[in-house]
Amino acid sequence: MRTVKAYGATSATAPLEPMTVERRDVGPHDVLIDIDYAGICHSDIHTIRGDWGPIAYPQVVGHEIVGRVTEVGSEVTKHQVGDTVGVGCQSNSCRSCAQCEQGHDQYCLNGNIQTYNGVDVDGTITQGGYSQAVVTNEDFVLNIPAGLDPARAAPLLCAGITTYSPLRHWNAGPGKRVAIIGMGGLGHMGVKLAVALGAEVTVLSRGTKKKDDALAFGATRYFDTTDADALAELTDSLDLIVNTVSAGLDIAAYLGLLDVDGTLVNVGAPSEPFSVPAFSLVPRRRSLSGSTTGGIAEIQEMLDFCAEHGIHPETELVAADGINDAWERVLSADVRYRFVIDTHTL
Amino acid sequence: MRTVKAYGATSATAPLEPMTVERRDVGPHDVLIDIDYAGICHSDIHTIRGDWGPIAYPQVVGHEIVGRVTEVGSEVTKHQVGDTVGVGCQSNSCRSCAQCEQGHDQYCLNGNIQTYNGVDVDGTITQGGYSQAVVTNEDFVLNIPAGLDPARAAPLLCAGITTYSPLRHWNAGPGKRVAIIGMGGLGHMGVKLAVALGAEVTVLSRGTKKKDDALAFGATRYFDTTDADALAELTDSLDLIVNTVSAGLDIAAYLGLLDVDGTLVNVGAPSEPFSVPAFSLVPRRRSLSGSTTGGIAEIQEMLDFCAEHGIHPETELVAADGINDAWERVLSADVRYRFVIDTHTL
Repeated sequence: MRTVKAYGATSATAPLEPMTVERRDVGPHDVLIDIDYAGICHSDIHTIRGDWGPIAYPQVVGHEIVGRVTEVGSEVTKHQVGDTVGVGCQSNSCRSCAQCEQGHDQYCLNGNIQTYNGVDVDGTITQGGYSQAVVTNEDFVLNIPAGLDPARAAPLLCAGITTYSPLRHWNAGPGKRVAIIGMGGLGHMGVKLAVALGAEVTVLSRGTKKKDDALAFGATRYFDTTDADALAELTDSLDLIVNTVSAGLDIAAYLGLLDVDGTLVNVGAPSEPFSVPAFSLVPRRRSLSGSTTGGIAEIQEMLDFCAEHGIHPETELVAADGINDAWERVLSADVRYRFVIDTHTL
Repeated sequence: MRTVKAYGATSATAPLEPMTVERRDVGPHDVLIDIDYAGICHSDIHTIRGDWGPIAYPQVVGHEIVGRVTEVGSEVTKHQVGDTVGVGCQSNSCRSCAQCEQGHDQYCLNGNIQTYNGVDVDGTITQGGYSQAVVTNEDFVLNIPAGLDPARAAPLLCAGITTYSPLRHWNAGPGKRVAIIGMGGLGHMGVKLAVALGAEVTVLSRGTKKKDDALAFGATRYFDTTDADALAELTDSLDLIVNTVSAGLDIAAYLGLLDVDGTLVNVGAPSEPFSVPAFSLVPRRRSLSGSTTGGIAEIQEMLDFCAEHGIHPETELVAADGINDAWERVLSADVRYRFVIDTHTL
């Protein structure tokens, strides 16, 4: 057992504050990682604030982790001391259910172990990446390829894979007309990844402030979603829409933009149910779907893809004492496009 | 032009009554069909009663038509006088859009011509199958295979194809766990077809009155949907659910029965929107979809499939003067499982 510095919450309402967390001893299949960078995800805030249900405190969040291996267990074969590695949303899974056997551990039927606010193998509540070090099973540790800048790569572990997985699952690529709703942390990665996959990419976002960025990321079109008339031009014209917005939307209006056999896939989770008229689906055989993160093999594929294509998240580095301010700015959508904590400042 | 006897509506509220309709002259690519049988579909009632918007009267409905060819146009190659044939929901389409070119004329992007209450090639409103004869373009006339009983085959043209198409599209077959919600005209065909396709079939229906029939049709399980506890047993266990119920449902409860990557496809069209929590889709990558009828080639495939497997709808034959009573019984779900009009009685 070792004690490491962290930054966490003691209640749903208090600001985050310096604290320590315990990390288990390095088991035969474990890797000890000195954390260098941790991304700030909107899910961190939802979790701490109890938006998705009550949690136990103190709690340290963070599931976009990049660091260096400093110790490996006796049986570890996948990683070596000195490797630059990452940890994402899940840190283990049952490995025996039908989903795990197909490599879809993100859909583990017995409940995978979330990197924070999960129940670990030893029964303790997992604590996340806003900390100096973490001990993780080697199978859930990702290799950060040499082509990626470790200081900017962390958001790939959640924002990157959460958009990459549905883009791949629904075959975004050449000839596919893809739209991304919302261009925040997830959305901006969705745009870059869909462009790199070869799709024709349209951005649907409130206002026009992000239009130049969207085009710079490779989108061919940008629509201000507050302009319903402009949006009508897209009726029946898209194959895939990835909705990254967690606020409620008039989902029927967006379903109407899909061509026959088109899919609108949600990766956000608004608290209010969608209102879906049957006639928005039936006459065009459309689908409304959902998707969550990606499996470990797919995360590695995505990291390698990003290295190969030179894709990095747009990030703003903050020190530990800037985390609370950063959270406020996430809540007011005042970030382009993802905060990353320099965990050396903890 | 010829005048034929029919049975139709003069307003949204009046009972149906005897009337006549005009049929166009047989053009070079047209087929004249003496109608023998016409199925009664719930859509007929919705259309006449204005549930799906106002329509022009008088209107004759019916899109499950079986009869014999009595005349063919000079260029017709697909059908001969004496052939037993059928006409379904659509009687023509643009033939040039991306969907028509793929054989998906049911999704014609320029609007296919519905067999009734559609705008025909000559600008008139199409009149349906509750009549003695119809003139239809040869490409939209189906062959009724010798293995099918013409007196019982008519419901295949809508109820059959509307369930067959999504079962095929979403790969119902051996190893697939399929459920059918509702066992009326569409639902009972869904059960028979899914069983014949090799799927493991579960029926979800109100009450227990239809349980014996469901098992006789080949379903392996029957659940009374008013028993929420029993239904909970199915959580995460189904690959495909076909919802044939047009009334509102707690759709989230049914989505919860789907395994990872499962799809719930609606073929009915309730007037109230579905309420769909994102969490009913995201953590299992589930989809809520819709589907409408099928293309002409697929209808022929379905008819051939039914002939090969000895599948017939369960029907009750009614005379013209029994149509109004039959409609009342459709509205009170008092039919096992589809009325067919003997159009010789018109």
